[in-house]
Amino acid sequence: MPSYTSIHLAERPTDQILPGKTFTAKQHPVPSASTLKDGEVLFQTLYLSLDPAMRGWLKDARSYVPPVKIGEVMRGAAIGIVLASKSQKFTVGTYASGTVGWTEYAVVKDKLLRALDLPEGAVPTDALSVLGMTGLTAYFGILDVGQVKKGDFVVVSGAAGATGSVVGQIAKIKGATVLGLAGADDKVKWLKEELGFDYALNYKDADFAKKFREATKGLIDVYFDNVGGEILDLALARAKPHARFVMCGAISQYNKSKPQGPKNYIMIISMRIRMQGFIVFDYEKQYAEARKELAQWLSEGKLKRKETIIKGGLTKAEQALVDLYNGVNTGKLLVEVAKPDDVKAKL
Amino acid sequence: MPSYTSIHLAERPTDQILPGKTFTAKQHPVPSASTLKDGEVLFQTLYLSLDPAMRGWLKDARSYVPPVKIGEVMRGAAIGIVLASKSQKFTVGTYASGTVGWTEYAVVKDKLLRALDLPEGAVPTDALSVLGMTGLTAYFGILDVGQVKKGDFVVVSGAAGATGSVVGQIAKIKGATVLGLAGADDKVKWLKEELGFDYALNYKDADFAKKFREATKGLIDVYFDNVGGEILDLALARAKPHARFVMCGAISQYNKSKPQGPKNYIMIISMRIRMQGFIVFDYEKQYAEARKELAQWLSEGKLKRKETIIKGGLTKAEQALVDLYNGVNTGKLLVEVAKPDDVKAKL
Repeated sequence: MPSYTSIHLAERPTDQILPGKTFTAKQHPVPSASTLKDGEVLFQTLYLSLDPAMRGWLKDARSYVPPVKIGEVMRGAAIGIVLASKSQKFTVGTYASGTVGWTEYAVVKDKLLRALDLPEGAVPTDALSVLGMTGLTAYFGILDVGQVKKGDFVVVSGAAGATGSVVGQIAKIKGATVLGLAGADDKVKWLKEELGFDYALNYKDADFAKKFREATKGLIDVYFDNVGGEILDLALARAKPHARFVMCGAISQYNKSKPQGPKNYIMIISMRIRMQGFIVFDYEKQYAEARKELAQWLSEGKLKRKETIIKGGLTKAEQALVDLYNGVNTGKLLVEVAKPDDVKAKL
Repeated sequence: MPSYTSIHLAERPTDQILPGKTFTAKQHPVPSASTLKDGEVLFQTLYLSLDPAMRGWLKDARSYVPPVKIGEVMRGAAIGIVLASKSQKFTVGTYASGTVGWTEYAVVKDKLLRALDLPEGAVPTDALSVLGMTGLTAYFGILDVGQVKKGDFVVVSGAAGATGSVVGQIAKIKGATVLGLAGADDKVKWLKEELGFDYALNYKDADFAKKFREATKGLIDVYFDNVGGEILDLALARAKPHARFVMCGAISQYNKSKPQGPKNYIMIISMRIRMQGFIVFDYEKQYAEARKELAQWLSEGKLKRKETIIKGGLTKAEQALVDLYNGVNTGKLLVEVAKPDDVKAKL
């Protein structure tokens, strides 16, 4: 009987995720098609989406979603192929996406899956990035929360990540001037030369703070924060009166047992800043419309994207997640759980 | 020749204001009426308004107003009496208010002064508190930034101060449930028994954090912050999804060379908090309308207020300002520079 692997939360990390300790792998027999109930499909995972927010899901704290329970399959979005179906919505061989979790196989209710519906020029993994949660996060964050408009000076931290890279490009589409912050010279180069950011800086440069102050001497209209920490403080110091601070993530703080609050937060008062957090799930009713616009920009070449794909299967996911917080990725970080061609060959 | 005193910034404090060091007193001959130009009045100060924001004005940093310069008269709002006038707007003996600064006398252009225009039941010093900047700050903060509405659970820090006490009462007028935080048992008693706050807590109580968590178990819709520090962190931890955080002041942090940022700020993301700063000056065009409503509430007895008046003249101002940060006041803190009856007797 063939078996498959799923990865479960074993213990809550106090700070860093510890591969081999935080998670544990379990083996199960692959379900046979005959066990499916009406409306269910047998899903084989191809790619897992790795996202900074995952660290928050491991914390036993009040948040926008309940924490992953000890023993539960690690939560996560994935794309995969329908291997067997008792659903009207999905035929065998269809690509689908959903929050299936860290598992090679799953029996899933069809209402929890979505057909990929890819525009011209798109690849299936775009459904996890530019047309998925990170693209939607960028879209609603910069447009609805940030209210970006022509002439704004926009700063994006974590700019080479899956969300930040889309944020900056949408801001450019809307006529803003964009400064992106990233943690490696090749990322900075990508932002400027490929994505068309006006400016980009490597925050690991020794004289970054000085360069940042120079680059923001006209002050900031919109700051889109994916990182927190010192960079948030620098941005507060350079906020224009009535600046909008879009609070999306805090990747520099998620692994800390005692996060660092922004000591320059008093600028919120003196500069009348609107600092606003958001969660993409609140925009669910507007996903379809947003996906349509993102797809159009993608087809027109106005929106570019990159993927960093970790190969080697599901068991690579926990180390990849650790590496995400260390900035291993340019663009979207994915784990290849199975090769599409191998899976298709079996069908 | 009679002389008068004015108080000037001598050096910028690094943390605490140091009476006798931060400021210096200067003597000047009292200007004679004959030196007035057209449109000018000779103003004698009766009461000075002391406000937490003053500490910020001593800092050489980018803010909503330029810092007070070294050697300049300390900035501050005052009410006084017109002793001599070459103005069409003010006759001798009229009460007026304006940002005249820390001085016993001043020659002032009439456009920089305002007639008190007091409603029934009001006293002149109300023009510095409930009908002045602190009342207006409360009004626009809780209504426009906080968008308080019926049924909201509102928490106000610095609740026994000039702004906080009005914030809580306006929230009550609008049908909210109000918890006030203050630093003394008599203040807590005043908030509950006189002002009609639903709940009030003394943040200096040993088990304050526990009491706060109990009092906010239904979570917070609107948090009006006058203090910052630990209390802001406690409020973040108890924010309801989509809570509004009205950032008005940070009295616990103003004297610190390194302010403490809110370590729970990641709740801004997970709870989709709108944390918004504001400065009352931005609402200048709406002052008249707001004053009218505040005056009506005052006349109707819906808005109560208290004053803490420091007697002994202008030279008491610097110690009084230090004491403001230590919570010496209930309601508005004023320095009596001259007794109204003494001044009137001279006219």
